[in-house]
Amino acid sequence: MASSSEFTRAHNEFRSDTFTVPTKEMLEAALVSSLGDSVYQEDKDTLDLEKKVADLAGKEAGLFCVSGTLSNQIGLRANLHQPPHSVLCDYRGHVYLHEAGGLATLSQAMVSAVHPANGIHLTLEDIIDNFIPDDGNIHAAPTKVISLENTLHGLLFPLDEIKRISAWCKENNVKLHLDGARLWNASVETGISIKEYCSYFDSVSLCLSKSLGAPIGSVLVGNPDFIAKANHFKKQNGGGIRQGGMLARMASIAIDQNLSKIKRSHEMAKELGKFCEENNIALECPVHTNFVFLDMNKMKMSNEVLLANAKKYNVKQMGCRVSFHFQISQESFENVKKAIYDTYLHSLEHPFYATAPARIYDINNR
Amino acid sequence: MASSSEFTRAHNEFRSDTFTVPTKEMLEAALVSSLGDSVYQEDKDTLDLEKKVADLAGKEAGLFCVSGTLSNQIGLRANLHQPPHSVLCDYRGHVYLHEAGGLATLSQAMVSAVHPANGIHLTLEDIIDNFIPDDGNIHAAPTKVISLENTLHGLLFPLDEIKRISAWCKENNVKLHLDGARLWNASVETGISIKEYCSYFDSVSLCLSKSLGAPIGSVLVGNPDFIAKANHFKKQNGGGIRQGGMLARMASIAIDQNLSKIKRSHEMAKELGKFCEENNIALECPVHTNFVFLDMNKMKMSNEVLLANAKKYNVKQMGCRVSFHFQISQESFENVKKAIYDTYLHSLEHPFYATAPARIYDINNR
Amino acid sequence: MASSSEFTRAHNEFRSDTFTVPTKEMLEAALVSSLGDSVYQEDKDTLDLEKKVADLAGKEAGLFCVSGTLSNQIGLRANLHQPPHSVLCDYRGHVYLHEAGGLATLSQAMVSAVHPANGIHLTLEDIIDNFIPDDGNIHAAPTKVISLENTLHGLLFPLDEIKRISAWCKENNVKLHLDGARLWNASVETGISIKEYCSYFDSVSLCLSKSLGAPIGSVLVGNPDFIAKANHFKKQNGGGIRQGGMLARMASIAIDQNLSKIKRSHEMAKELGKFCEENNIALECPVHTNFVFLDMNKMKMSNEVLLANAKKYNVKQMGCRVSFHFQISQESFENVKKAIYDTYLHSLEHPFYATAPARIYDINNR
Amino acid sequence: MASSSEFTRAHNEFRSDTFTVPTKEMLEAALVSSLGDSVYQEDKDTLDLEKKVADLAGKEAGLFCVSGTLSNQIGLRANLHQPPHSVLCDYRGHVYLHEAGGLATLSQAMVSAVHPANGIHLTLEDIIDNFIPDDGNIHAAPTKVISLENTLHGLLFPLDEIKRISAWCKENNVKLHLDGARLWNASVETGISIKEYCSYFDSVSLCLSKSLGAPIGSVLVGNPDFIAKANHFKKQNGGGIRQGGMLARMASIAIDQNLSKIKRSHEMAKELGKFCEENNIALECPVHTNFVFLDMNKMKMSNEVLLANAKKYNVKQMGCRVSFHFQISQESFENVKKAIYDTYLHSLEHPFYATAPARIYDINNR
Repeated sequence: MASSSEFTRAHNEFRSDTFTVPTKEMLEAALVSSLGDSVYQEDKDTLDLEKKVADLAGKEAGLFCVSGTLSNQIGLRANLHQPPHSVLCDYRGHVYLHEAGGLATLSQAMVSAVHPANGIHLTLEDIIDNFIPDDGNIHAAPTKVISLENTLHGLLFPLDEIKRISAWCKENNVKLHLDGARLWNASVETGISIKEYCSYFDSVSLCLSKSLGAPIGSVLVGNPDFIAKANHFKKQNGGGIRQGGMLARMASIAIDQNLSKIKRSHEMAKELGKFCEENNIALECPVHTNFVFLDMNKMKMSNEVLLANAKKYNVKQMGCRVSFHFQISQESFENVKKAIYDTYLHSLEHPFYATAPARIYDINNR
Repeated sequence: MASSSEFTRAHNEFRSDTFTVPTKEMLEAALVSSLGDSVYQEDKDTLDLEKKVADLAGKEAGLFCVSGTLSNQIGLRANLHQPPHSVLCDYRGHVYLHEAGGLATLSQAMVSAVHPANGIHLTLEDIIDNFIPDDGNIHAAPTKVISLENTLHGLLFPLDEIKRISAWCKENNVKLHLDGARLWNASVETGISIKEYCSYFDSVSLCLSKSLGAPIGSVLVGNPDFIAKANHFKKQNGGGIRQGGMLARMASIAIDQNLSKIKRSHEMAKELGKFCEENNIALECPVHTNFVFLDMNKMKMSNEVLLANAKKYNVKQMGCRVSFHFQISQESFENVKKAIYDTYLHSLEHPFYATAPARIYDINNR
Repeated sequence: MASSSEFTRAHNEFRSDTFTVPTKEMLEAALVSSLGDSVYQEDKDTLDLEKKVADLAGKEAGLFCVSGTLSNQIGLRANLHQPPHSVLCDYRGHVYLHEAGGLATLSQAMVSAVHPANGIHLTLEDIIDNFIPDDGNIHAAPTKVISLENTLHGLLFPLDEIKRISAWCKENNVKLHLDGARLWNASVETGISIKEYCSYFDSVSLCLSKSLGAPIGSVLVGNPDFIAKANHFKKQNGGGIRQGGMLARMASIAIDQNLSKIKRSHEMAKELGKFCEENNIALECPVHTNFVFLDMNKMKMSNEVLLANAKKYNVKQMGCRVSFHFQISQESFENVKKAIYDTYLHSLEHPFYATAPARIYDINNR
Repeated sequence: MASSSEFTRAHNEFRSDTFTVPTKEMLEAALVSSLGDSVYQEDKDTLDLEKKVADLAGKEAGLFCVSGTLSNQIGLRANLHQPPHSVLCDYRGHVYLHEAGGLATLSQAMVSAVHPANGIHLTLEDIIDNFIPDDGNIHAAPTKVISLENTLHGLLFPLDEIKRISAWCKENNVKLHLDGARLWNASVETGISIKEYCSYFDSVSLCLSKSLGAPIGSVLVGNPDFIAKANHFKKQNGGGIRQGGMLARMASIAIDQNLSKIKRSHEMAKELGKFCEENNIALECPVHTNFVFLDMNKMKMSNEVLLANAKKYNVKQMGCRVSFHFQISQESFENVKKAIYDTYLHSLEHPFYATAPARIYDINNR
């Protein structure tokens, strides 16, 4: 068994909620996992996990994938048919910015990357303004899929807005996909069930390696025909794996054991948000769940200084985003506050003028 | 020979500057054009035109294409190599909105579609803010080509800004392409030569069927290796033509005879702009060259009413954009003013509230 | 008007049947063609030609394209929907070998390039042997379109075999496309109507610049929904043209005036075939229509010597394929025989051993 | 820990050498594996495995992938740059037939799928005959990568032929990739080192889940720049995994413990081959390593009967291919012979006439 220091190594890891490590219980479960071939759909633990997540989401079928990028990209691809076509999403969307251009290569899709008028989340009005109808205009690449993300930058997507968008999509024959990598966080925070959220979407990608702590894995859910098609694209993308039972088993444990622990990470994030507010350290956006975004440019805080302070206080950071997860220790939490505060104090004496504004692709890229 | 009514049929055509008709001189020239095979580069008139436009642009080589979409898309493609990669352009860019998603299909390219901070044209700052560096971040699709458009919505792109952007691109190893479909208009308006403009770009697409009045054709210019590669993509796209001499000859005549006539179309557009201003009819953007964009939403003017009035006054329109070209008659010019004014009067009594804002893809799509 | 030497310049052109030049009648027709915008489907001559060819083919709709590569590639693309998918065709197929890899780029399609067991044309058995069913095997890219070519290397595709294949395709839910660039030749030779041939296919591409002598143009025919979709791809490929009336009018004249002249080109080709036979000059395949393929390797004939002899006798050749069309003069016909015969004599004294066998992509690439 | 029946479940598994199950030692190793994030290249066991395999192969860098399809496809992609381009490979190649059309989608590549003249393996002559040069012919998609496979259908690729091909590729500026999913088998059989084999290729994909028995994994090796580029494509394909240490550790154990066990699987396969020969049961090809291909069509053996007999004797088969690996038990080996022999006897009485020949894509698809 890994040493105990391995199991707690993520206690000071504020770079991303993907840096959690598998728990002892997960590793032990791996030992007793099924050993069938999942390409041939003969692995019991994989099939069980797919059913478990599909049930949680209220969908008929699920597909285990080795990454959220895989489940998002094949999900979008399976919703698309014949180009020319476009996908509409938030301009900060992971599927647009952080999946290495997969939409162009795999889906031959253009992207309408929309700036939400309210600065927080897309509304139906934003969508209508940027929607490209399939009205026979041969100059255009019509919008065929709308892809939402919940949470995005830790921000909650209001259920009422999802309902409006979903109803409109049905009327207009447009598919609605959810990048629900962090839907667990939204559900924990709002008390709205995963099933309720998913009921408004044709397809949902749910990550198991963010916040929940599985080492590897994401599950795409939808109807059986859709999942069968997505599985074909999964194979094409090289995502077919052989004896994947242990990965599935560990992910299953992650759901059982860690979902309830997410709440604490949100509390920590909000406490840090409050701390910043009290000390006049501006944030880029409100703290809804497990992320705090420092407005480094406004505060004239230097990233280099922040990283140096993080090192001094033995915490790991990589920029304006401070991520929380269930493996953060109380001690490291206190330390990250100190690192930020010291950086703030430094900025008062030595304001840093960025040569370029913070760029959207610099953050949230995991 | 076509009847004289055919030759003047575009006198009331305000839908686009592409609706001009070939002149009698062009048709006569077609009769004496060379008859070689241009796929095998054996057609003299095609070769002559390619050289003529390349010389005008100060580039070493040119490639005759049957459309501006073809010359833009193969130009961008030949500038791109191995994905993941992105093209950065104005969010209103023709290459992004009106070329049927070619960038995704042909180039496997993502697009960073940028809103200019000044509302008129991109600046180097806009570009730096949205530039995706090739810095080893495997989540990203780095920016490999920046594509400007001059004119765009009839707006001039300031030469000084082009110079800044061009210098930055060279420093950062990014290719710079110009959609110069209407660079003729920019050159005529500013007095800056085509050659001067083109000197800041790696590749330029120059249309011959807009403003200049050639029935068909666009020329891509650049260095010989680039043009050879673009020619391969042209063939792949099905753009290789056989005895294209007559098209090339007509386009050549178009340059010789019609470039000087562009000025008048700008005067008409500005006169209409002034007319609108005097009558408190708001415009979406200033009138720099041959387009007037009515701010229909702000004025609560109905497009349906506008089209009806256009019909009443025997002019052809298709929306908020009023296009001018050298074949517009003085009489039709007076009529289009009446059609707009009547629509304005109607809006005062019957304000029209659009269910959706005017969408960017609705306009400038030719 | 072009000088008379221009009009007869193709008299000695044996490189390809695409090297014909427009006739005087075509050019005169160009002068009186319609001048509407064909992107907006407002050009009368284009619409007329599309209807004319669709009627000839017994299909509901047609689409004018600037090349056979364009009409083939968008036809195949519009028949395909969601990958993974494959197109099955003859290994010598133009769509596979000579369209610059368009199937991969535009259609994301794999190709099953099949060697006909009989060496002449594909049979249903060949197709069944190489067909990839859509049976849920996620390793495969199922065959979704079968693309035949008639004529191919000048060889006739037997109607009975077409019927068998067509019936099988319908049963197996596979689309059947015909590259009918030279279907005119097949129809003239067999007396089977274009309509009869086309009735067995979902889509057919018919070239107007091969054998018929139009300077530019090809027409894709099929049902209206298919053609609408193909038109979207045509625009994406940069194939939308403005005032294309004159091209359409010339192509229409080509059909009216030159179809009946094809017969003579077949007679010449067969006469040359007989001449070769009598002189023990081996051919690669039988002469069915307007091509003769010399078996240069078997005869140990050098291409370099052939080209030198062609020059000596004032005829244009480019390799083992000798092409015939209606503009070949009797004098040049006699000359090409001399050039071949002299090369044959030379080979007896100086047999040429190719360092590599003749490669399939070297021939028939126009 | 999984029950012992789980660990021996593959004893009767003749469907593919991918059906091996992880050993107890592998699972135990998983428990002590490193827990870093491999997307950020912070996972020690992944980095160690990549170095280990790269060293074995004599290359500078390695990249762990979750499947052989992934390592092949991104390896080919990273070797390709700007289309139009083609990949040349054996017509039975896994990269062509069994990777779900990835070459078209990811690489926009056409495929020249070549039939080896000798029926066993490609020769330089086969390659030269089908090579498409980059000679400026705009109709073609030039060959930019040649992809060999060793073993293919269990057949050894002679080293001397590899040397000839490699030298020619260097001269002709063509990249040479090896699908070495089963190069372990070739090396064990011939005694030629992995390093010696790999020295002739630009890139090699080495599977760890075939023959070696790792549950999941494949390593792509090449030079550092190539691997960095491949890693970008890996992320785009959704192949970036988080805490992958346990997969890497298990794969490492697989190399250490199971490489030496491959020999016995070859002995079994050859013994079965001899058994077939002695009983006049024809094979499709000679037995070189761990596969036996029954010539079912020639023997008029029915697959349905074979599967029934397999069931009767408690062995798992799926068609003409009989696969061997180190977990096959002696008892099951005797049983598979009986199943085949009974099927042969049945065919004497009840010859089966296939409605279609065995199709190439039906076999070897794992």
